[in-house]
Amino acid sequence: MFISDCLNVNKEGHLTIGGLSTVQLAEKYGTPLYVMDENLIRENIRSFKKSIERYYGGHGLVAYASKAFACKAMYAICKDEGIGVDVVSGGELYTALQAGFQPENIVFHGNNKTPDELTMAVETGVGRIVVDNISELHLLDGIARAAGKKVRIMFRIKPGVDAHTHSFIRTGQIDSKFGFALETGEAMAAVDEALKLPELTLVGLHCHIGSQIFDIEPFEHAAQVMLQFMGDVKKKHGAVLRELNLGGGFGIKYLPEHDPDDYDTYMKRVSTVVKKTAAQQDLPEPFILIEPGRSIVGPAGITLYKVGAIKEIPGVRTYVSIDGGMGDNPRYILYQSDYDVMIANKATQQKTEVVTVAGKCCESGDLIQENAPIQHVEVGDVLAVLATGAYNYSMASNYNRIPRPAVVFVKDGKDRLAVRRETYEDLVRCDCE
Amino acid sequence: MFISDCLNVNKEGHLTIGGLSTVQLAEKYGTPLYVMDENLIRENIRSFKKSIERYYGGHGLVAYASKAFACKAMYAICKDEGIGVDVVSGGELYTALQAGFQPENIVFHGNNKTPDELTMAVETGVGRIVVDNISELHLLDGIARAAGKKVRIMFRIKPGVDAHTHSFIRTGQIDSKFGFALETGEAMAAVDEALKLPELTLVGLHCHIGSQIFDIEPFEHAAQVMLQFMGDVKKKHGAVLRELNLGGGFGIKYLPEHDPDDYDTYMKRVSTVVKKTAAQQDLPEPFILIEPGRSIVGPAGITLYKVGAIKEIPGVRTYVSIDGGMGDNPRYILYQSDYDVMIANKATQQKTEVVTVAGKCCESGDLIQENAPIQHVEVGDVLAVLATGAYNYSMASNYNRIPRPAVVFVKDGKDRLAVRRETYEDLVRCDCE
Repeated sequence: MFISDCLNVNKEGHLTIGGLSTVQLAEKYGTPLYVMDENLIRENIRSFKKSIERYYGGHGLVAYASKAFACKAMYAICKDEGIGVDVVSGGELYTALQAGFQPENIVFHGNNKTPDELTMAVETGVGRIVVDNISELHLLDGIARAAGKKVRIMFRIKPGVDAHTHSFIRTGQIDSKFGFALETGEAMAAVDEALKLPELTLVGLHCHIGSQIFDIEPFEHAAQVMLQFMGDVKKKHGAVLRELNLGGGFGIKYLPEHDPDDYDTYMKRVSTVVKKTAAQQDLPEPFILIEPGRSIVGPAGITLYKVGAIKEIPGVRTYVSIDGGMGDNPRYILYQSDYDVMIANKATQQKTEVVTVAGKCCESGDLIQENAPIQHVEVGDVLAVLATGAYNYSMASNYNRIPRPAVVFVKDGKDRLAVRRETYEDLVRCDCE
Repeated sequence: MFISDCLNVNKEGHLTIGGLSTVQLAEKYGTPLYVMDENLIRENIRSFKKSIERYYGGHGLVAYASKAFACKAMYAICKDEGIGVDVVSGGELYTALQAGFQPENIVFHGNNKTPDELTMAVETGVGRIVVDNISELHLLDGIARAAGKKVRIMFRIKPGVDAHTHSFIRTGQIDSKFGFALETGEAMAAVDEALKLPELTLVGLHCHIGSQIFDIEPFEHAAQVMLQFMGDVKKKHGAVLRELNLGGGFGIKYLPEHDPDDYDTYMKRVSTVVKKTAAQQDLPEPFILIEPGRSIVGPAGITLYKVGAIKEIPGVRTYVSIDGGMGDNPRYILYQSDYDVMIANKATQQKTEVVTVAGKCCESGDLIQENAPIQHVEVGDVLAVLATGAYNYSMASNYNRIPRPAVVFVKDGKDRLAVRRETYEDLVRCDCE
């Protein structure tokens, strides 16, 4: 009935998440409010894990891409489920460690890690640092030497696969701030260099071909390109790189008409390519890593708002203003992202209206969705935006000095705060006199 | 020499702001770092004040549009300079009051103020609440009655002037989440209603026609339309609205080729229209308010970064990665905004290169400027982005869990923290276990 399995309707006709009434949650915690179904987060994690077990003998690691949604409670879930996490900053690393996450299962990414961040990663024993560029390689080498530590690294490679145009145009994909290009020889030159540095152990390669991808073919193509390059490395140096990190980018269902493949299908097809290409290149089957972020948390989250002003402009459109906006969900103003919206307290009613959902920021572009089908809307209704679990809280700002909402986790009929709501006092805590 | 008067070069060839070395400031406070010249902020405020004195007999108030840049230190400057401020949320109001700002000189805006925000505004004695829509009018009336207070209100009116297309297409401008439309009769119906509510005193009208406007004509046109409507109100009700809030939207110089008119020219031309139209409508000359935000703080601010990885992609482009990005300046990814960039430690050198300045976020769109002329760039250089005083700190996020930078004010050869840098501890302060 809904775009996400964690959503349903109770006997009052109100939207539920994880079996709990969204209307009651809005009442209890106030709005705007992020609510996430912890069971669905865990199910999604397990489905990724199981797909590696089923199709690749369990010879791999799921590393949650925590930039999608990071807080101590989320890292604790990942720890509890026995997966790894991918972090992209000292702040994410700090948060993961604060949650007791084991550093050896952390993968550290980024196109411009600072010296402080690399030092922190080395000192805390991060399991894999994904080196993005040659100056970072030398910077990290110096830090590892100074610390007297061996550091396990991977290289971020541009596989020349453009997932979004569905064409494999290398010149397009080469134009990225991330990683080493294959076709210019840059990637091989980096391997040449890394193999000379005794403090750094090059354990494998990483690639990431995009975001919100619905098509499996580009993933297969990227896996093939990466293994061919691992074959080239073996031929040139005799060195066998044991790990292949295939990144993330799996698409999720934002609108009813979206139909992503399930991750089992992805893993079945990609693991077939990995095994076949490894054999062709005379390589052992690599340990694989995958880095789902959005696909773990996105469908598990919703945002609840209260409807304020409703402005019907005859012959133009109807604006429905909510008590949040681009501060808590900047994805529409950034990317004109699709969202399914509904009136939570009228969940069984037909969607008979088409409205523009506007935020409360003083910015004309502060909209959450334009021309969205919705139930009859009235002031005071609870409006739900679905599939907001990824890149909403993590991208939130205090624009207009609006406090960021709380995040509530629901599980087995119980709710708990994962992140408390900011207060006005929080807003001024860094302000000096 | 530079796009802003507060910038210069010292004898080491380093960029200075307010006479202080940006290289030393970057060293002292770390990067990324926002730096603002307090003297220029004060000069800009005074130039707006003086223009009202010179061309309108001082019969008006400058209200700083604080969404451009809000913190206690900024509100304290406004208080010290004797101007008003415009706030758009409870958080901005709270911050202004924390800075000791007098509530009677605060103007409260927003398309969807919450009941809590309106209550706070009434209880703290905000001088003017700009009512956006009819449901807000009734909500505020109820709150004023309950509090037993008289509340001074203005109405936000859509004057039907589209500043950005330079055509006065009413159907375009009517499609806005803000305000009451004139041509549909909505605005007059709201006036009819307000005049019946004894707790609310309708002191005048407000309009705002857009942002970063270089052309004075739309402002003149809007002033004329508004006064004609005030004439209509007088004819219908005999009521004289004494105040006209002309909003803001004055363009600033982001690139060397930008050439905004000075505010004196604006005030001279607009005040002429106001006086003339008031006379035609048999109205007294209204008390005017103007709400500059960007034009007060934008040119006074710069952001300093350290250059990390430099990635030259032959035949494509060169990416220069800095230690900040869309987290501290989301305007490029949001609007592809123009910025002038330079190497602060090579300020006297010619700009011989063209590069793309990339942020450190794990997001391919995280760029600060594409194809930007710049001096020869090396790892470790201090890169300055100019005219970042508006809508940078105020729109900043913790995306990728990157702490938000400090804001330093410089004045008369001295520097001080206006906002301290966030720490990793700050990032987890709302996280629950």
